[in-house]
Amino acid sequence: MEAPNPVSENSDSKSSRTRQRILKAAAGIFRQQGYTSASLREIAESAGMQAGSLYYHFDSKEDLAEAVMDEGVAAARRSAEQALAALGGGEDALSAIEAAFRGHLAYLLEESDFAVATLRMLHQTPEAIRKRHTRKQRQFGQFYAGLFKQARRDGLIRDDFDLSALRMLLLGALNWSPEWFDEGRLTAEQLVHQLSMMMRNGLMPPRLRVVPGAATAR
Amino acid sequence: MEAPNPVSENSDSKSSRTRQRILKAAAGIFRQQGYTSASLREIAESAGMQAGSLYYHFDSKEDLAEAVMDEGVAAARRSAEQALAALGGGEDALSAIEAAFRGHLAYLLEESDFAVATLRMLHQTPEAIRKRHTRKQRQFGQFYAGLFKQARRDGLIRDDFDLSALRMLLLGALNWSPEWFDEGRLTAEQLVHQLSMMMRNGLMPPRLRVVPGAATAR
Repeated sequence: MEAPNPVSENSDSKSSRTRQRILKAAAGIFRQQGYTSASLREIAESAGMQAGSLYYHFDSKEDLAEAVMDEGVAAARRSAEQALAALGGGEDALSAIEAAFRGHLAYLLEESDFAVATLRMLHQTPEAIRKRHTRKQRQFGQFYAGLFKQARRDGLIRDDFDLSALRMLLLGALNWSPEWFDEGRLTAEQLVHQLSMMMRNGLMPPRLRVVPGAATAR
Repeated sequence: MEAPNPVSENSDSKSSRTRQRILKAAAGIFRQQGYTSASLREIAESAGMQAGSLYYHFDSKEDLAEAVMDEGVAAARRSAEQALAALGGGEDALSAIEAAFRGHLAYLLEESDFAVATLRMLHQTPEAIRKRHTRKQRQFGQFYAGLFKQARRDGLIRDDFDLSALRMLLLGALNWSPEWFDEGRLTAEQLVHQLSMMMRNGLMPPRLRVVPGAATAR
């Protein structure tokens, strides 16, 4: 095998950095304006480059929109998986869910343009893009579904919970947070800790808790 | 006092019905297309009327967009308050929150166009509209803040919860549900019941629960 060519390696990583810069600028513009009114010219300007150079990386606005949405899901998932891997494997299945939430939320709040732009533009993009992207979101959902199933197998989630509804409610709490989160008050970690306390023990002091079924029947 | 004029009463209620029909059509179009690309002509068509007649009720697209967003918040709040009032007043403060959630979610899922359209277009509307509407959303938030404060005063929410973060997480779970809810599987009521079980007792079977602090410290 040959040694890697340092020139092409450098230009590859430069190209990848430029691509990331464009994606970030595009996420900001799409977040503000939605898909339909955003222009490639404005996105190029916000990325500090000529519109012509942008075409070297992305063929069209559609292409760029899809890349922004896909990057948002892929990076959120990487962040969730890294936080999970950092636990080292000896944790219980609820701790695994909490770690994934922590990584996921840290990304959502740090790079909120991607999540909010996706929410605003998904239904404005052409159907083929929407379908492909929705499939990727669903794959990320399956990652979580696996964690929830494990928690149930381990006896950590009661039988009266519908696993799929529970997962979507908790992910909704996470996904909504870029809309209101105020960095000054809490960190992403403290926010996940709030969810986590509720998941483990509910809201009430121990002396008030009763056997499920009695408290929750109607 | 004179008896009400039956002619003008009828035409008032006819006018109000037409207004509602336009709002509903507009919510559907804004949901699909966002604010910028939606046209009054299309909205009129979807409401089964001429664009000219639409102008009798709304001055402009801006005016109509604001009315759609405001109606979404106002109707969600009415639905939450009605569900709360129906309890009759003898309930504990967590049951009050759950009832408000139930009414709120029933509306969100039944008239999901309003919630989803608002989410998609709020940041595309002119700043003055956005500010006025955000104030109305915040007033609705204050309604919930009052219920959460009462629950804490009554000792039903532990001190280690940040009331504002908790409220926003739970409302996020609610607000996100029109994005994924599938009517075939669960009713709105069953969905709120899942949240409610988690709020009261957490996810775990009673035998596994430990004193908060021990379980949740890191």
